[in-house]
Amino acid sequence: MDVVVEPGIGWMELNEYLEPYGLFFPLDPGPGATIGGMCATRCSGSLAVRYGTMRENVINLKVVLANGEVVKTGSRARKSAAGYDLTRLIIGSEGTLGVITEVTLRLQKIPEYSVVAMCNFPTVKDAADVAIATMMSGIQVSRVELLDEVQVRAINVANGKNLPEVPTLMFEFIGTEAYSHEQTLIVQKIASEHNGSDFVFAEDPEAKKELWKIRKEALWACFAMEPNFEAMITDVCVPLSRLAELISRSKKELDSSSLVCTVIAHAGDGNFHTVVLFDPNDEKQRKEAERLNHFMVHAALDLEGTCTGEHGVGTGKMKYLEKELGMEALKTMKRIKAALDPNGIMNPGKLIPPHVCF
Amino acid sequence: MDVVVEPGIGWMELNEYLEPYGLFFPLDPGPGATIGGMCATRCSGSLAVRYGTMRENVINLKVVLANGEVVKTGSRARKSAAGYDLTRLIIGSEGTLGVITEVTLRLQKIPEYSVVAMCNFPTVKDAADVAIATMMSGIQVSRVELLDEVQVRAINVANGKNLPEVPTLMFEFIGTEAYSHEQTLIVQKIASEHNGSDFVFAEDPEAKKELWKIRKEALWACFAMEPNFEAMITDVCVPLSRLAELISRSKKELDSSSLVCTVIAHAGDGNFHTVVLFDPNDEKQRKEAERLNHFMVHAALDLEGTCTGEHGVGTGKMKYLEKELGMEALKTMKRIKAALDPNGIMNPGKLIPPHVCF
Repeated sequence: MDVVVEPGIGWMELNEYLEPYGLFFPLDPGPGATIGGMCATRCSGSLAVRYGTMRENVINLKVVLANGEVVKTGSRARKSAAGYDLTRLIIGSEGTLGVITEVTLRLQKIPEYSVVAMCNFPTVKDAADVAIATMMSGIQVSRVELLDEVQVRAINVANGKNLPEVPTLMFEFIGTEAYSHEQTLIVQKIASEHNGSDFVFAEDPEAKKELWKIRKEALWACFAMEPNFEAMITDVCVPLSRLAELISRSKKELDSSSLVCTVIAHAGDGNFHTVVLFDPNDEKQRKEAERLNHFMVHAALDLEGTCTGEHGVGTGKMKYLEKELGMEALKTMKRIKAALDPNGIMNPGKLIPPHVCF
Repeated sequence: MDVVVEPGIGWMELNEYLEPYGLFFPLDPGPGATIGGMCATRCSGSLAVRYGTMRENVINLKVVLANGEVVKTGSRARKSAAGYDLTRLIIGSEGTLGVITEVTLRLQKIPEYSVVAMCNFPTVKDAADVAIATMMSGIQVSRVELLDEVQVRAINVANGKNLPEVPTLMFEFIGTEAYSHEQTLIVQKIASEHNGSDFVFAEDPEAKKELWKIRKEALWACFAMEPNFEAMITDVCVPLSRLAELISRSKKELDSSSLVCTVIAHAGDGNFHTVVLFDPNDEKQRKEAERLNHFMVHAALDLEGTCTGEHGVGTGKMKYLEKELGMEALKTMKRIKAALDPNGIMNPGKLIPPHVCF
């Protein structure tokens, strides 16, 4: 239940290859993502609520360091207590410590059965509360995604659909047929206790694919609303218990903005995205998009969250790291960077803010 | 669903505290283990097959570095892509990089229902094959532990029981009542397809406790067989597909030894322990115990495994690290160690073999 790949393979290509074996790699970020990039950014996706992130699904990797040495970070065993966790050090290092050349991935069995469900709510808070209650119920839900009414409107516009333009939760339950049904009923009950309505679910493979398409094409649906605009996609993550509050605070700001903004959350992880559409030729709009992004990052940090749930730091999020992690953590990172890349040749100018020194 | 603790609290004490909240910390190593030590050694236990190891269950931690600086390694969010994974760097560093002073742990809901099952097999290979088939079936088993016939004999001697002295698997299935039963039936069928017999299971809390006691007290049962002896407890881990072979190779060696040796495996992870009993006053026996340990580590390394699945490195396993990881990986660890502890004051002489230099 593992596979060794080179970094340039896409996760979708990999899963096509694995399907005849009844196995899959359980991460589903954006469709173009490659395994190497997924490692470098410590990414995740909608399945993380059950299967974890890149952090949990890489057994070992090969990395070429700045001095040309090739390191294999671990054995093929699922568990090891053999020294420093170099695998996890490289995952999320965004190319600043080395170039990943090979990855051993942990695979999962394709679920025997699954049910996809959808439910409407009067407010985003109701939807968030149901996501949290589902997590607290002990059900190991496979996906729980939250879309706000603006996102649903975008989907209607893009696909010529007629979905109720209200906050919506989408679930996936997996397991045996009986257990998938049982989970569906449990969550239907939870939803009804939080003003949920129009709970629908699908079991037929084509019907499930159609239903889930709604979520998968959310970003492109946004562009359908404003075809010549760019999108600033925000990404923050907070403790589960703070998600409802984060979304409320953010919605107030987003709804009163002149820009069109949609909300998509991996609700079971407390991970929250906004798609902010702006005219790239209008400097005022670009600044407003940045202001909204800034607002949400600070709201998340105030709620003990992180400025980046799964998208990485790059250059754009360096400015938030000191507030999130503190200077001591950044100095520690810089020491490690200096030890492994003394000449600063590996993806310079990224990840560690330039003002950090030790 | 998280809790902040100081490192000296035992996991059992913590779980007593959490029980009224319906939550627990899902790692179960030896009974005396404290959270700090569990972090430092990257330990796990029988529940890792479902819930993961320390690696997966720590959200952040506070560590005091060699220079006195206090670092908090991350926010309270479940997922983060904010820079180097300092949390995972410290976990498993065995005190060589800093002193852990505070840990934020990820908690799970206490399962609604559970079933404990036990089954006998004619050979250890049959038992291992059933463990593997159970993992491959997609069931997220909560525990699957393998005991060999010598271990069962020890349990009989210690507890005055009359269990068949044959290779035995013990399972725990969790979820809703219906799903727990469903999993039990699926695995019963798998067991019967691999010469399994005497499949029994318990649902009543007291009966489950009694049944699981067999596994929990395995080590002390060994001492009952040889009350004045010491035990060398080995710990290796291999890819799941190599477990049956590792156990076969090891059993040949163990059975032909003059010493009493028992096998206990966290079979779902490929993690395999032997308890080798020896007279501490008999140098020949001590050397034989070491020889057996050495044999099993090398067998595991030959099967792409690790010399230490969950017990750490300390001094005893340093000699295997170069064969397992290669000199480049060890030099990388040394560089990190030198960067964070230039004066070598943090638990000197441990983890990184002394001959490694860069």
